[in-house]
Amino acid sequence: MMDERDLRILKAISDLGTGSPEQIHEATDIPISTIHYRLNNLRDAGVIENDLYDLDLDALGLGVTVIVEVLADYSESYETVAEQLLAIEGVTQAYFTMGETDFVVIARLSDSEKVERLIREFEAIEQVERTNSTFVITPLRDGQHILQSYSIETLVDELADED
Amino acid sequence: MMDERDLRILKAISDLGTGSPEQIHEATDIPISTIHYRLNNLRDAGVIENDLYDLDLDALGLGVTVIVEVLADYSESYETVAEQLLAIEGVTQAYFTMGETDFVVIARLSDSEKVERLIREFEAIEQVERTNSTFVITPLRDGQHILQSYSIETLVDELADED
Amino acid sequence: MMDERDLRILKAISDLGTGSPEQIHEATDIPISTIHYRLNNLRDAGVIENDLYDLDLDALGLGVTVIVEVLADYSESYETVAEQLLAIEGVTQAYFTMGETDFVVIARLSDSEKVERLIREFEAIEQVERTNSTFVITPLRDGQHILQSYSIETLVDELADED
Amino acid sequence: MMDERDLRILKAISDLGTGSPEQIHEATDIPISTIHYRLNNLRDAGVIENDLYDLDLDALGLGVTVIVEVLADYSESYETVAEQLLAIEGVTQAYFTMGETDFVVIARLSDSEKVERLIREFEAIEQVERTNSTFVITPLRDGQHILQSYSIETLVDELADED
Amino acid sequence: MMDERDLRILKAISDLGTGSPEQIHEATDIPISTIHYRLNNLRDAGVIENDLYDLDLDALGLGVTVIVEVLADYSESYETVAEQLLAIEGVTQAYFTMGETDFVVIARLSDSEKVERLIREFEAIEQVERTNSTFVITPLRDGQHILQSYSIETLVDELADED
Amino acid sequence: MMDERDLRILKAISDLGTGSPEQIHEATDIPISTIHYRLNNLRDAGVIENDLYDLDLDALGLGVTVIVEVLADYSESYETVAEQLLAIEGVTQAYFTMGETDFVVIARLSDSEKVERLIREFEAIEQVERTNSTFVITPLRDGQHILQSYSIETLVDELADED
Amino acid sequence: MMDERDLRILKAISDLGTGSPEQIHEATDIPISTIHYRLNNLRDAGVIENDLYDLDLDALGLGVTVIVEVLADYSESYETVAEQLLAIEGVTQAYFTMGETDFVVIARLSDSEKVERLIREFEAIEQVERTNSTFVITPLRDGQHILQSYSIETLVDELADED
Amino acid sequence: MMDERDLRILKAISDLGTGSPEQIHEATDIPISTIHYRLNNLRDAGVIENDLYDLDLDALGLGVTVIVEVLADYSESYETVAEQLLAIEGVTQAYFTMGETDFVVIARLSDSEKVERLIREFEAIEQVERTNSTFVITPLRDGQHILQSYSIETLVDELADED
Repeated sequence: MMDERDLRILKAISDLGTGSPEQIHEATDIPISTIHYRLNNLRDAGVIENDLYDLDLDALGLGVTVIVEVLADYSESYETVAEQLLAIEGVTQAYFTMGETDFVVIARLSDSEKVERLIREFEAIEQVERTNSTFVITPLRDGQHILQSYSIETLVDELADED
Repeated sequence: MMDERDLRILKAISDLGTGSPEQIHEATDIPISTIHYRLNNLRDAGVIENDLYDLDLDALGLGVTVIVEVLADYSESYETVAEQLLAIEGVTQAYFTMGETDFVVIARLSDSEKVERLIREFEAIEQVERTNSTFVITPLRDGQHILQSYSIETLVDELADED
Repeated sequence: MMDERDLRILKAISDLGTGSPEQIHEATDIPISTIHYRLNNLRDAGVIENDLYDLDLDALGLGVTVIVEVLADYSESYETVAEQLLAIEGVTQAYFTMGETDFVVIARLSDSEKVERLIREFEAIEQVERTNSTFVITPLRDGQHILQSYSIETLVDELADED
Repeated sequence: MMDERDLRILKAISDLGTGSPEQIHEATDIPISTIHYRLNNLRDAGVIENDLYDLDLDALGLGVTVIVEVLADYSESYETVAEQLLAIEGVTQAYFTMGETDFVVIARLSDSEKVERLIREFEAIEQVERTNSTFVITPLRDGQHILQSYSIETLVDELADED
Repeated sequence: MMDERDLRILKAISDLGTGSPEQIHEATDIPISTIHYRLNNLRDAGVIENDLYDLDLDALGLGVTVIVEVLADYSESYETVAEQLLAIEGVTQAYFTMGETDFVVIARLSDSEKVERLIREFEAIEQVERTNSTFVITPLRDGQHILQSYSIETLVDELADED
Repeated sequence: MMDERDLRILKAISDLGTGSPEQIHEATDIPISTIHYRLNNLRDAGVIENDLYDLDLDALGLGVTVIVEVLADYSESYETVAEQLLAIEGVTQAYFTMGETDFVVIARLSDSEKVERLIREFEAIEQVERTNSTFVITPLRDGQHILQSYSIETLVDELADED
Repeated sequence: MMDERDLRILKAISDLGTGSPEQIHEATDIPISTIHYRLNNLRDAGVIENDLYDLDLDALGLGVTVIVEVLADYSESYETVAEQLLAIEGVTQAYFTMGETDFVVIARLSDSEKVERLIREFEAIEQVERTNSTFVITPLRDGQHILQSYSIETLVDELADED
Repeated sequence: MMDERDLRILKAISDLGTGSPEQIHEATDIPISTIHYRLNNLRDAGVIENDLYDLDLDALGLGVTVIVEVLADYSESYETVAEQLLAIEGVTQAYFTMGETDFVVIARLSDSEKVERLIREFEAIEQVERTNSTFVITPLRDGQHILQSYSIETLVDELADED
């Protein structure tokens, strides 16, 4: 049902950080009226889930989640390694960590056959020594809007601590 | 600079999935004109980063990230365990996984002294057998808008695969 | 293209250890002429790969392989645990091993969403303490006809050793 | 009791994927009548277990099973490593996997003294960094005819999913 | 050369946090002049290393250092476990930690035969599930006066950060 | 409240191993009367905790403790590695150990953001192969005056064993 | 070639700690002249390797060596566990250790099929929580006469240290 | 009480595999009558424990036992590595093993301060990649006369299997 135009609109929203049809039009050359029309359809179909443009990832064909622990030689600079990790397509989260592992990376893929490509790209990074990837059976919460995880009392307290 | 009103507005946006002043007003009883005024200020201050209401977490006093691996006895049902994990305040992401660990959970806290409280709450869950937590030195990417991680070509291909 | 009749014939071959249409007929009540006809079609389509009735597992919709390490309390008898492991649908290989793990089990599933069901069934076995499952990216060799892995010289030598 | 001729016949069946005396004769030059006679004897002795030519591995002097986890540097290509692993005599199964280990390999040997030779051959592969081998105390199921592990209902369901 | 009186004086210094002969006298009933005399001798012999009463542990017969990782069930309260760990004689440092281990404890003993007693006492604590102890070959630095590890510039910076 | 002069005095005490105002004066050029005055203030404020000049580390802005396990190639000499580890600012304890880890190092930092700098410095040591760092949630005992951990009876016994 | 009489003589030597035919006779009732005759034959055949009655284990049918790491709950007393470990037939060495494992046990068996029996007996001990057994590919040195491993200079030095 | 002459006699017994005073005399030049006299004294003192010349290791000043797991690069030949391991003074047992570790080595030392020397010598072997050493708290059985670990029935059975 979705076609390339839909995807170009959705991607523009992510890239630009806005749902404004005018700005999407400038980035994509798709007529503004078409953008309006498409966005409405995507909302009706549940692909766009709310006013914040959260997306239904399954509808987008990104239903497989993989967590990858990366050991790397970052004796020169961890930033160089980080940059290359972030450049791998599908890497949606990445953390530089203490502990036995140097980086924890989370990636989303369209199906389990893409895992081979993903691992290959990690291993092709010169400084990467080992990867240990784990298949996510079920994602439970995605962290798109993190204030949902706090009570207003906690937030007020945290802020008070900061000042 | 931020006060409780600002936080109640930001939290309402997350909870409701909208930045609409009218809906925020209904949920919070804060006058609509105040909401307009406050949102503008928060945008100017960089706390709200774009039209999608992405937030600057450091400004919100949530600068510490912890990754927790959880081993649990889920022989009855993993959903019961998952529910309790998600109920812990500050848990922004959670995954039920294959491999040596049963759940991978990511939490955000205001400072490292809160870690003790967090670990305590995990260990208090009856089915949790062990936790192994790792301190994130630097978060590299947060996954708030995941389409940024893909080229339009890939997205089109993935979608084609799905159909 | 395949239907239930095809599958009942293929399963009968596995269960009976024969490709004889007469014996398949006795077990399935499918007319012998139909069996002949179906087997020819399955051969032409490449589902049946040779005279030994090796099967193309992808064509059968069993394209996902998972290796599960099982730690169990087998202080009473390992056979009781083994029986329960073998009773889980999709378990095609299983080994009782020395080393850190008690059992190594290999299972085939139709897609990655079935992994949740599989893990659940392992964890439901009372004596099972932990499972550690690994997703197979690519199966390289399947061990269906193991003499392919030996030269005739080695086989002669091995046999000589035995006597 | 078995001699080299028996073994050459059995190996030809594996290599050719057929039990047809004519084809075995072409590959081995053993007279067809001899092949008939030998196959009957091997069936009577239980070495050949059924019409699908499954073999009694103990009778063949291949009673020792070893599971080897292989860590390798496959940054150039995992296929190069895979090829070398598969070329080691006695390797009957091999999987390229996610997780802490890169390859899981299963080998069968005539006795435990052959383990030294096997490990040596793994370590001689340039890209292999470490091997971790585990002795199988008792093989429980061998996966020769995997449809035995499924009910007909599941097979029908799986197939339906595929289409 | 040292006798019980010397040890009682040295222990009083540790317990009271002072080298004052008057206070040591009050705690031990040893005459003040004896205390003066003994302290001078201990300084001459190098047992007391400086004005801060740092001690030569080897001279005191405490030459063996052991690091113990402790896994414990602290679902009720980690403080209960901590208290019992600290009550074991010879435990000079203890930390409640994130990561795979719950507590890291450092103990000093007079000789390696005392290790058995130490491990026994750890294992006798009800909440302790496992201990993993490591023998220190050579202690490199002891942390008695930690400001030695910092430049004055760093200290000034750290303090500025605090305010 | 504390300023650089206070810190220079406190550091001199650690470096010299004495609280003598005369010796501190020689090392720092701060007038003796000022030293007297400052030390009294630091005692009143609880920064100096007793006559042995034990310090309140939190008051000094060193509230974060990290335990680092270090794997290193010390085939030439472990002393070379040890020296470099000890030269890292903030390393207050270090042990050369048996077991899976070569060195266990404890460091104190002013806040969790300094961890990145610390790990970087460890990884920059040529012989260091891997580090595994653990965040201390709560330090329980610091080992500044270790005789507190022993009864007088044990000390007498240990000493007797030595002779 | 060896028969039960030979074995009873060899076992008596081990049990009694002597090769004296008179004492062996008292323990076994085998006539002294027979003992003389048999011992000479066993020496000629190389089963008895020297005057210290070291034995050729392969000739005795004990060619398989297994190293077993044992984790046990020894909170009551490690001696109780140790006793049960030593009572398992074939256990020739056993150590109570520091580190991740509680006991390291070495056993000799006649062939790899006996491993199943051995593991079963370990797991049947109530306090044993887990075993991790490793197959020895080749024993390199057996420690029967340990002074061979030292130079005379070292022995003299060690002894001097002791006094 | 023991002197170098005693040690030279004891070592000659180990090296030659005999307690014959004549042969010891040939190897050591110590007069035969002295050898007789010394051996009697060593027996009376319990250093020599029986007619098989088993020794009381504590009396010999070799009271510390260490188990060392060795990971090595043995891609060329494991024998080269084995030789170097066996050449380290104090190594009394060594095994080439399957599993995560390549070699398991047991060494005896006079005191825990010698551990540093031992580890240094292991690490100095070029092919050795890592060592993981564990301190033995209490040796439970030493394997000097292994037939003690078997019943006569088992030995007869094992032998029967061999033939």
